[in-house]
Amino acid sequence: MLINAILFDNFTSLDLFGPVDILARVPDTQVRYYSLAGGPVVSSQGSTVLTESAGQAQFSGALLVPGGLGTRMLSWDGEFLAALRRLADAAPWCLSVCTGSVLLAACGALHGKRATSNKCAFEWVRRFPGVLWQPRARWVADGKFYTSSGVAAGMDMALGFVRDRHGRELAEQIAWRMEYCWNSDEERDPFAAK
Amino acid sequence: MLINAILFDNFTSLDLFGPVDILARVPDTQVRYYSLAGGPVVSSQGSTVLTESAGQAQFSGALLVPGGLGTRMLSWDGEFLAALRRLADAAPWCLSVCTGSVLLAACGALHGKRATSNKCAFEWVRRFPGVLWQPRARWVADGKFYTSSGVAAGMDMALGFVRDRHGRELAEQIAWRMEYCWNSDEERDPFAAK
Repeated sequence: MLINAILFDNFTSLDLFGPVDILARVPDTQVRYYSLAGGPVVSSQGSTVLTESAGQAQFSGALLVPGGLGTRMLSWDGEFLAALRRLADAAPWCLSVCTGSVLLAACGALHGKRATSNKCAFEWVRRFPGVLWQPRARWVADGKFYTSSGVAAGMDMALGFVRDRHGRELAEQIAWRMEYCWNSDEERDPFAAK
Repeated sequence: MLINAILFDNFTSLDLFGPVDILARVPDTQVRYYSLAGGPVVSSQGSTVLTESAGQAQFSGALLVPGGLGTRMLSWDGEFLAALRRLADAAPWCLSVCTGSVLLAACGALHGKRATSNKCAFEWVRRFPGVLWQPRARWVADGKFYTSSGVAAGMDMALGFVRDRHGRELAEQIAWRMEYCWNSDEERDPFAAK
């Protein structure tokens, strides 16, 4: 499977590289890094990552959308959202981490779907209508959409995605090799508001 | 504080970006990305990260050394090891994740120190002499050296480093904002050999 990550300036690097490190351990998986225009993209942590242009791409495989401060501006950027909607509609699977789900909501892809997002930003997240926002969930799977809570929850979701596609044994093997203590219950959310 | 990450081809991206995302949340912290020659570096997960040259750098702040498949070749690359030794000697703090500690061992910086590394690769790790290798530890702090177990343990170590420098409250705040379930006991190692 191809994993097609969509980057933008001021994405949160762990939102991307946590899930990527997990998904890349599934046999026959490749990760590609895109942005709307292509070229260098700078994360909130100051790393510069090179990307290919997604503007005209017709790629197959799963879409992976990280979150981060950059989502604030993109959530009302019509050109970006139209491109994201086209990519999300075409993708067999769409995964988002943290406020990446806001971008999927803002482009309309999550309409009528159950989804979650960063718990510290949930009041802002709720303003995007048409989505059945789940305030208490480590991650949510609804059809082809997997959306996770903030930053570190993306790793738990990625392992959940591996489990749902390839079985629990592979997910647990990957977590073991990475020495990651997997929070494997998507309904257990220690960071939800009381 | 400056965090100076030393990258190389086939580093493991989560080894780097897990700790980086945590450390960058400490007030007045900046992360810089170096490699020996500078320029683009490609991780095992296919991401291309731009770096500055560390060859002649005289930087201050903490050194951060990720692990990954690339450490196998570098562990006998005299030019790289000499440069790393110079940087490690000059740094007030040296942090490594996973097999990054092998590079610190191979350059002699860890001589006589307690340290740990990836538990799946521990038989290889033990071949580097002069280090008091700890087969059961989530991470080990010995003087200015912080070495973690495999991949995901780097995040727990980074929070431990924040706790030791700035107090437990800040470490817990950062973990909360990232929705990360911190394994805060460095002596508890679920991945050690039985």
